[in-house]
Amino acid sequence: MRSDVEVFQSALESMREEVNQALKDLIDHEVALGAGEVALEAGRVLNAGGKRLRPLLFLLAYRLAGGTQQDEVMPLALAFELIHTATLVHDDINDDARQRRGIPTIHAQTGQAKAVIAGDWLFVQGFGLGGRYSEQIVTVIARCCANIAVSEYHQLDHVLNLATSPEDYLSIVRGKTAGPFAAGCYAAGLVAGLEEEQAKGLERFGMELGIAFQLVDDLLDLRGDERMGKPRGADVYEGKMTLPLIHALTLSHGANRERLSQLIEHFSDEDFDELMTLLERSDSLDYAEILVRTHLERAQAELAAFPDSDAKSMMLVITDIVKERHA
Amino acid sequence: MRSDVEVFQSALESMREEVNQALKDLIDHEVALGAGEVALEAGRVLNAGGKRLRPLLFLLAYRLAGGTQQDEVMPLALAFELIHTATLVHDDINDDARQRRGIPTIHAQTGQAKAVIAGDWLFVQGFGLGGRYSEQIVTVIARCCANIAVSEYHQLDHVLNLATSPEDYLSIVRGKTAGPFAAGCYAAGLVAGLEEEQAKGLERFGMELGIAFQLVDDLLDLRGDERMGKPRGADVYEGKMTLPLIHALTLSHGANRERLSQLIEHFSDEDFDELMTLLERSDSLDYAEILVRTHLERAQAELAAFPDSDAKSMMLVITDIVKERHA
Repeated sequence: MRSDVEVFQSALESMREEVNQALKDLIDHEVALGAGEVALEAGRVLNAGGKRLRPLLFLLAYRLAGGTQQDEVMPLALAFELIHTATLVHDDINDDARQRRGIPTIHAQTGQAKAVIAGDWLFVQGFGLGGRYSEQIVTVIARCCANIAVSEYHQLDHVLNLATSPEDYLSIVRGKTAGPFAAGCYAAGLVAGLEEEQAKGLERFGMELGIAFQLVDDLLDLRGDERMGKPRGADVYEGKMTLPLIHALTLSHGANRERLSQLIEHFSDEDFDELMTLLERSDSLDYAEILVRTHLERAQAELAAFPDSDAKSMMLVITDIVKERHA
Repeated sequence: MRSDVEVFQSALESMREEVNQALKDLIDHEVALGAGEVALEAGRVLNAGGKRLRPLLFLLAYRLAGGTQQDEVMPLALAFELIHTATLVHDDINDDARQRRGIPTIHAQTGQAKAVIAGDWLFVQGFGLGGRYSEQIVTVIARCCANIAVSEYHQLDHVLNLATSPEDYLSIVRGKTAGPFAAGCYAAGLVAGLEEEQAKGLERFGMELGIAFQLVDDLLDLRGDERMGKPRGADVYEGKMTLPLIHALTLSHGANRERLSQLIEHFSDEDFDELMTLLERSDSLDYAEILVRTHLERAQAELAAFPDSDAKSMMLVITDIVKERHA
């Protein structure tokens, strides 16, 4: 007999397949309309996998909020996934990343000009779907996307800035990564007919889960994980100030801090072991892990306001997936 | 006493000021909300002038269609201007253009990464405004923007392709330049409450006007015009196959065609006079001018279906502006 968790994991897998199919259908439809290469290139990255955590969460938040007509919320869930992929395409240009989800990035494949446009095309598709909703929800989506851009500016300003504080970091993460989790859950609640105050609970859930998600990303970048589909240490190479680095820089002093600064500013592959040793000396990876747990617990606590249901159980499974990243 | 044309030009100038003020207010509002540098950079280019032909046309199309509450259509007009500016920002990255509207481009000012994001931010602002309308209108905007991307791909595929036909050219222009004129006029008509069939007349008006607009752009690039805010011959340097070049390549043969091909493929400043001589030998500039007149006449003919009004007179003034580019 299968355990409950296995049953919910299997149900999640079915939902993921539904999302994947809907995204494939969208690309096929655009290709049939004559969109050609831009749709094929965008579709190549869009359909290269990914955990689909965002759309799954939004479909579940809608159900948790009492929604019963999935068609009503699916365009919203797809809109966020399309916009998310658009930002990845543009990020990959700016980071000159060659691989994403284990396949060549668009700009590696077609050059920069077409990659910029393919990202725009994905944005347009996302907004075309998101624009079907009420003015209130359109404003939520637009505000969320504007915040992504604002936070990306802040992140660029903090590249290799060794004075970046945990507060700077959290502000960037809230805007860039966690904001879309929060906005999608909030909007899904509204689509299901929740009152503002209850929908705000879903927003907080998404924000806490999104922060934890980014912290796990930071840790995976340092520890390495094939499933990331990009090389270990990419963040360090790009000069991104992730929380473990910020924490270690804050706690280290004297020769250790000086060496850590050198490693970060002139990072190369052979420095990896030394960097990890310094991060472990300040317990910075453990610290990040504790924060992951804290934010996940806060996320789970927000769900307590909603009655038990399969949707709630599946959302808890997703918080576990974020913790374990075994998806 | 002022002539009628002067009265309408002056009324247009007032409308342009209203549009400019609304765009400035939008940027100020975002800055007040904490958007910072991304809004300031985007605003720097957005508010550097420009004729605002698109938003003016859409406000007028709404009035022509019987609309009387300008607030009802203003967000639509601004949405198209914001999206237009977003595509300019991204185009300038891809063309490595240093100047736009007489000031440094965003990527010249801040580097590529921030310029990509500033363009995204402008898209988001545009869609945030456009998303306030009915699903039908949102679909019109999204379809129009997707077509811009598709046509930009085709344009890139035709760079320095000397076999580009007039049909290829028109298809690209319809998608990239004229499509937004058409979509905006059409949507403005729907906002005013027009029936589908009448709104389609406005769509055709916008399409014809937009084609003429691009043809004038092609001519100005060759003849030079300070008001373009970019150097003469930029299209030729970028390998863009504009209609005069396509026409000349089609009509020339033997040594003339060979020399023309060489000039286009390895263009440099000192070749300008020779290029113009070859274009004049095949009457290619005259040909483009005849096409401008043809498309403008077709645009004007579409307006005949609507009763005379100040709005109609001002739209006719705009078709003259496109012809003369004395705005």
